[in-house]
Amino acid sequence: MSLNEREWFTEVFEERTAFAVRYSRKLYDRQSDFQKIEIFETEAMGRALILNGCFMLTDKDAFIYHEMLVHPALSILCNPQEVLVIGGGDGGAVTEIVKYPGVRSVTLCEIDPLVVSSCREFFPRISAGLADPRVTVVHEDGASFITRHRDRFDLVLVDSTDPVGPAKALFEIPFYESVRNSLVRDGVAVFQTESPLFMDQVFRTAVKDLATVFGPDATYPYCATIPCYPGGLWSFTMCAERLDPTGSGAIDARGVLPEELRYYDRDIHRAAFALPVFVRELLGETRTSSERNT
Amino acid sequence: MSLNEREWFTEVFEERTAFAVRYSRKLYDRQSDFQKIEIFETEAMGRALILNGCFMLTDKDAFIYHEMLVHPALSILCNPQEVLVIGGGDGGAVTEIVKYPGVRSVTLCEIDPLVVSSCREFFPRISAGLADPRVTVVHEDGASFITRHRDRFDLVLVDSTDPVGPAKALFEIPFYESVRNSLVRDGVAVFQTESPLFMDQVFRTAVKDLATVFGPDATYPYCATIPCYPGGLWSFTMCAERLDPTGSGAIDARGVLPEELRYYDRDIHRAAFALPVFVRELLGETRTSSERNT
Repeated sequence: MSLNEREWFTEVFEERTAFAVRYSRKLYDRQSDFQKIEIFETEAMGRALILNGCFMLTDKDAFIYHEMLVHPALSILCNPQEVLVIGGGDGGAVTEIVKYPGVRSVTLCEIDPLVVSSCREFFPRISAGLADPRVTVVHEDGASFITRHRDRFDLVLVDSTDPVGPAKALFEIPFYESVRNSLVRDGVAVFQTESPLFMDQVFRTAVKDLATVFGPDATYPYCATIPCYPGGLWSFTMCAERLDPTGSGAIDARGVLPEELRYYDRDIHRAAFALPVFVRELLGETRTSSERNT
Repeated sequence: MSLNEREWFTEVFEERTAFAVRYSRKLYDRQSDFQKIEIFETEAMGRALILNGCFMLTDKDAFIYHEMLVHPALSILCNPQEVLVIGGGDGGAVTEIVKYPGVRSVTLCEIDPLVVSSCREFFPRISAGLADPRVTVVHEDGASFITRHRDRFDLVLVDSTDPVGPAKALFEIPFYESVRNSLVRDGVAVFQTESPLFMDQVFRTAVKDLATVFGPDATYPYCATIPCYPGGLWSFTMCAERLDPTGSGAIDARGVLPEELRYYDRDIHRAAFALPVFVRELLGETRTSSERNT
């Protein structure tokens, strides 16, 4: 059947597959300086944020993405105090970060102020953390902002859109190098690195380039299922030069997790780093995660 | 945008979400006694099998479903010899099963002969195992077939469609009881139990009913990402009364895995049983999989 455009929002991916959600109302529709921003009210997924025609988040599944971007790193860091989020203007990552009482300062560097203001209005629960007094919002290109900070952050999270338009530079080696330079000695960075199934070459290149910058033994891809993203199977890559996120040492030593997590716990932490065979093969990694860890 | 019906096949799920794939050709289109069977040639996913308007499998992601249905149980069973597959007329599960040289006999009980013949023609690689001399194909209602067998199978795999039409009886307690009765003393059964995210109540009821029949401590739900299924996050439930699939004993003791697996290995085995917090909560399970296992 064909879907009526007045009732369905459809994201077409590479002109080959599509995911659509039926909506009752379009709540927001503006062209910012950077992108087209739409917000729909839907029955199946709650509210959905669409940037340039692509699903960014929905009320139904955003918790998976934000928890899996933030907690695998933040929960194993010892006394993290300064955190930077690049992109992530919806505030969802910040909302997870401020659940840690020890964090002293969170900077959100989101290029597009309209993403932040529209999400504060239409996704109040997801963006709630933006109101925390420890949070500073900066509207600037993340690739430029990061070059002005050295040895500063305990954790940098790169919560980017796909590598086109404003986010293209966030998938390039000079940016990865700037992120590395911005970290303190024991600092950690996490990048969203696309779908290993539907964007396998983008994923592979990102992991390879991160391994070039941070070192192959400091680069840890992991996966989660994000239903509203193409292919469903999604990847993040953690770069940690002095901490092994897959080792029992790091996992067992860490403190109390925030309450009210809906996806992440320590079993999910371990599970996420167990890559499917085809993902390991794509990366040329012959060891399983448990072999790598022994 | 709207999708042209002559170029796109669209599965609409509960009139609320939709997944679509652009196709170059429709290879097959017949109404059997049980369902409408369509096969499309697509660029993104290879060939796609559609039953009654729903994606059953695609060349691109079928390996995930079939490996995760078969190997978590078959690889930890000690000397499995007799295996029954109910449903699964595409032959994908059988193809994984016959990779184990010790298996003596595989019965495929698929109600619809046209599913088997069309898949043999259009999915030769996926259905290849059907040609193995150890395989017998029976065209009968699985719910009826199973009642004639007691203490017979080492492993029963229920590879059903959604619980409507011919598969409805495969989600009911009398069927679960018949499956239990059909197993040998150390036997194991695995059921596909739908999406914990998009069909949360069907999933919850299936796991609850299986726990009633097999016992709550013998019922082990696990997950994998199946991109062409609604919600992407998919569940299976293993019922094993004398074997703990999450225990290191079972995992470490097992023999050599078949070669050429593309998704499953022992790390993925452990990872699959680590349920996201919201899935545990949906099931009323307060323990994590590692707590349950200690």
